[in-house]
Amino acid sequence: MARDEGIKALFEPRSVALVGSSKLRERVGMTAPWLFKSVIHNMKKYFRGKVYVIDIHGKTSRLSTVKDLPGKPDLGVLMLSPPLSIKKAQELSEAGVKALLGITGGYKAEEREQLLHIGREHGVRFLGPNTILGVVNTTNGLNTMFEQDLMPMKGKISIISQSGGIGAAMIDWVCFYGIGLSKFAFTGDKIDVDDIDIISYYGEDPDTNAMAIYMEGLREGKEFVNAVREVVKEKPVVALKGGITQEAARRALSHTASIAGVDAIYSAAFKKAGVIRVSYGIDHLFDAVLALSKQPPMKGDRVAIISNVGGPAILAADAVYRYGLKLAKLSDETVARLARKYPEVDATNPIDMIADAKAERYRDVLELVLADPNVDGVLVINMLKSCFFEPEDAEVIAEVAKKHSDKPVVDVPTGAEDYLLIQKALRQTDIPTFNLPDMAARALNWLREYDAIRKRIHNKENVEPRDSRKPRTYTKNS
Amino acid sequence: MARDEGIKALFEPRSVALVGSSKLRERVGMTAPWLFKSVIHNMKKYFRGKVYVIDIHGKTSRLSTVKDLPGKPDLGVLMLSPPLSIKKAQELSEAGVKALLGITGGYKAEEREQLLHIGREHGVRFLGPNTILGVVNTTNGLNTMFEQDLMPMKGKISIISQSGGIGAAMIDWVCFYGIGLSKFAFTGDKIDVDDIDIISYYGEDPDTNAMAIYMEGLREGKEFVNAVREVVKEKPVVALKGGITQEAARRALSHTASIAGVDAIYSAAFKKAGVIRVSYGIDHLFDAVLALSKQPPMKGDRVAIISNVGGPAILAADAVYRYGLKLAKLSDETVARLARKYPEVDATNPIDMIADAKAERYRDVLELVLADPNVDGVLVINMLKSCFFEPEDAEVIAEVAKKHSDKPVVDVPTGAEDYLLIQKALRQTDIPTFNLPDMAARALNWLREYDAIRKRIHNKENVEPRDSRKPRTYTKNS
Repeated sequence: MARDEGIKALFEPRSVALVGSSKLRERVGMTAPWLFKSVIHNMKKYFRGKVYVIDIHGKTSRLSTVKDLPGKPDLGVLMLSPPLSIKKAQELSEAGVKALLGITGGYKAEEREQLLHIGREHGVRFLGPNTILGVVNTTNGLNTMFEQDLMPMKGKISIISQSGGIGAAMIDWVCFYGIGLSKFAFTGDKIDVDDIDIISYYGEDPDTNAMAIYMEGLREGKEFVNAVREVVKEKPVVALKGGITQEAARRALSHTASIAGVDAIYSAAFKKAGVIRVSYGIDHLFDAVLALSKQPPMKGDRVAIISNVGGPAILAADAVYRYGLKLAKLSDETVARLARKYPEVDATNPIDMIADAKAERYRDVLELVLADPNVDGVLVINMLKSCFFEPEDAEVIAEVAKKHSDKPVVDVPTGAEDYLLIQKALRQTDIPTFNLPDMAARALNWLREYDAIRKRIHNKENVEPRDSRKPRTYTKNS
Repeated sequence: MARDEGIKALFEPRSVALVGSSKLRERVGMTAPWLFKSVIHNMKKYFRGKVYVIDIHGKTSRLSTVKDLPGKPDLGVLMLSPPLSIKKAQELSEAGVKALLGITGGYKAEEREQLLHIGREHGVRFLGPNTILGVVNTTNGLNTMFEQDLMPMKGKISIISQSGGIGAAMIDWVCFYGIGLSKFAFTGDKIDVDDIDIISYYGEDPDTNAMAIYMEGLREGKEFVNAVREVVKEKPVVALKGGITQEAARRALSHTASIAGVDAIYSAAFKKAGVIRVSYGIDHLFDAVLALSKQPPMKGDRVAIISNVGGPAILAADAVYRYGLKLAKLSDETVARLARKYPEVDATNPIDMIADAKAERYRDVLELVLADPNVDGVLVINMLKSCFFEPEDAEVIAEVAKKHSDKPVVDVPTGAEDYLLIQKALRQTDIPTFNLPDMAARALNWLREYDAIRKRIHNKENVEPRDSRKPRTYTKNS
C-alpha cells in the first residue's frame, strides 16, 4: 500500500470503526466509558461516512468483535488500554483497515514497538497513540474529539498539535472566535505518522492554504527540512516549538548554555525549511496563520495606516518600526486626491480619518491608499467606542481589499467587547482582525517574512514564485 | 489655594457644573448636543454629589448662565467650542470653582494660553482641554464620559491616558473583563494638570494601589523622575509611551537613529523614576498593572508551575526562562510530601497534576509548593477542555494564596471561552488571570522587576522597603 494512502485514510476515510468499552475505566491513559460514548456521539452527529461501533463489553445490540464487522472500515480508532488496543489493532489490520488512530495513552516502550510492528506488517499507518483528541476534518465531518458537540467552522487553516492540552486550547480558541479550520491532527506519541507525513498531506490538500504546528520534538531533521521546503513554496507553514527547557534539561547540559543551544538547533532547522517560527504562544501561532491563510505575502516593507482615532494609529506607527517595516510615503497624487475629497482629513500617513468616519470614507480612503504604488500593505484601525463607526461598516474593507488582491490588508478593531463585534462582522471574509495595533503590525511582518521565504527558495531553484493563493477568494457566506 | 486642592476637586468634587449647549454642533472639536446630553445622563445616574447643568441655549427650565447657579460648584466641566469655553471658564473661575475640566478640543495655541491664564489668575487647576472623556471615579460615581451607561467596576487600579481613543479602548477592555478601577483621568492637551500632578494624587489616594499610564509626551523630565520615585516606593507605576516614531519624525532626525534615540531618552527617564515600562500595547499595560495591583512583589526568581495539563506547563517553563526567571527546585521535603499524598503525580517542577485534578488536589499541591522555601512565586494552570476542572474549583487558588501573602500567585486558564469562564470566577479575588502561559510568566517577571525597583530606591536612601500592600485583602464579594 502506498505510504500516502494510509495518511489519506486518517483524514478521508469512507468508513470508520470505533473500538472501545462501555464498561472499562482506567485512571491513567484515559480509557473510559464516557470518552467512548462521547466520540461515538460526535462521529454519529458529524461524520458523513459509515460508522461502526465495536464495544468489547457490549450487549448483542452492538458489535462486540471485529469479526462481526459487516463491511471493511478504512480507519480504526482505538480507545482501550494498551494491551487491549494492541489486540484490536491486530484484528483491525487483518480486517483490512488502511490506518489506525490511537486516542488513549499510557503505553510502555515495548507496547509502542508492538503497535509499530503490527502496522508495518500489514502496511497500516498508525497515528499516536496518546493523541487524546485524534483527528478533525470539517470537510467530511470526521471528529474523534471527546468534547461533545464541539465542531470548528469550515475554513482553510489546518493544524497539527503534538499535545492534547495545547490542542484542546486551540480548539476552544477557534470555536469561540469562529475561525475556520480545514483539518486538525493530534500527533501524540508519534510512533509512526509524524509531522512530515501530515505537512506533506496538507500540502496536497485543496482545502488547506496555510498550516500551524505545535511540536515538542522533531526527529529526522534533514527529511523534515526537505519535505517542508517543497510545501512552503505554495503554502505557508507556521510553527511553535514547546519544551526547549525540558529538552535542554534532558540533554543534561548546563542550563543557560543548553537552552540557547537547543533553541538555536530548531531555529536553524526551521529557517532552512522555510518555516515561520513563533516563540511566545498559541496567540502568535493563530495570529500568524490567520493572516497567512487570508492575505497575500507582502512584497515590500512600506505600510499605510488608516484610522478613525489618533492614539491607536500612533501606536500602530511605533509597531510598524518595531517590526522593521516602514511607514509608506504616500504619492503626491494620492495626497492631492485625498485632500480634494476629504479636506478635513490630514493626508499624512498615519491617516487620521476622524471619529465620524463611516463605511463611505473607509471605502474611499482605503481604495486610494491601496492604489498607491508607494504602498505595500495597509493596516486599518476602526474603533467603535467614542466613534461613529458601526460593526457592519467594516464590510467595505473586505470589498475594497478584494479588488487589490496583491497587497495585504489587516484590520484592528481596538478594545475587547468592541473587538468581538467587528471580528464577528469580518470573520467570514478574507480580512484578518487583531485587537491591538501591535498584533496587526506583527501580522504584516509575517506576511513580509513569507514573501522573503518564497523568494529565497525559488531563487535557489531559479524559478519565479507563483502566487498560488491568487485570486483572493472572498469566502463570505460560503 | 493649595496646588493639590485643585487636583482633589477634579476627582472628589462635592458639586459639579456641566456647561454645554443643547443646540450647538461643531464638526471638529466634538461640541454636540448628544455629547452634552450623554454626560448629563451619566452624571445624574452615577455621581453621588450635586450636579448643576448650565445649557447656554436652554429654556427657562434649565440654568442658562453661571450667575444663576444656586450653589458653588467645586468643578466645572466645559463642553463647548473654544471661544465659548473660555468665556465660561472665566465665569466659573469667578464663581469660585477649584478646578476646570475641558472635554472638547480644537483649541489654538493662543486659546490654550487664555485658559491657562484664567486658571492661574484664580488659582483654578485646568485638566485638558481635549480630554474627550474627562474623569471617572468609581468611589463617588463621577463620570464625564459620553458613552451612556458605561461605568467600570470598583477596584484598586487607577489610570491616566493622554489619548481619548486609547482610553476608550481601555474602558471597553476593563468593562468587558470586569477589571476593577479606582480612577481614570484623560489628560488631553495637558496645558496645566499633567502626569506628575495626577501620579502624586494617586500616590496619596487610599483607593489606588497601582497605576497605569498611557502617555505621548512628557515635559519636565527631572520633576517627573523626582515626583514619581516617591510614589513608586509604595505603589507600582506602569507606563506605555506612544508616539516614539512621531516624536522622532518631529525632531527631524534620520529615521533609524532618531527612533532609537527618542526611545532611549524615555527608557532612561522611566528607569530613573522607577517606572515599569511596557512597549507593545495596552494588553501589556493591563497585564502588568493587574498583577501589580493584586499580588506582592516577587522577592526571588524561582518559579513553581502546577498544572492539570502537560503541554501548557511545558510552554510555561519555556516562558519562565525566556523572561530570565528560573524553575524552582522543590525541597526534598516538598517532594516527599507530594509523593506521599499523590503518588500518581510526578513531583518534578513543572508539576503535572493530571487531567482529573479538581479543587482538592489544587489546594493541597499549591499549599505545599507555596510553603516551600525554595519557591518565590507560583504559576498555576487550569484548563477546562479535556479536563475535569470546573470554573468554581479555581476559588481555592485565591484561598490558599491568601495564606501566603508574601509570594505571588498568578493563574492561567488556557483558551478563549474557557478563559472567560474562569476569569469570571476569579475576577473579584486577588488572583490575576492570564489566558496563556507566556503572559503569566511575563507578569511574574514584572512582579520581580517591581521588587528590584523598590530595593534599588530604598537602598539609596538606606531604608528597608515597607511592604505597603500586605496583608493581602481578599476582595471577593466586597
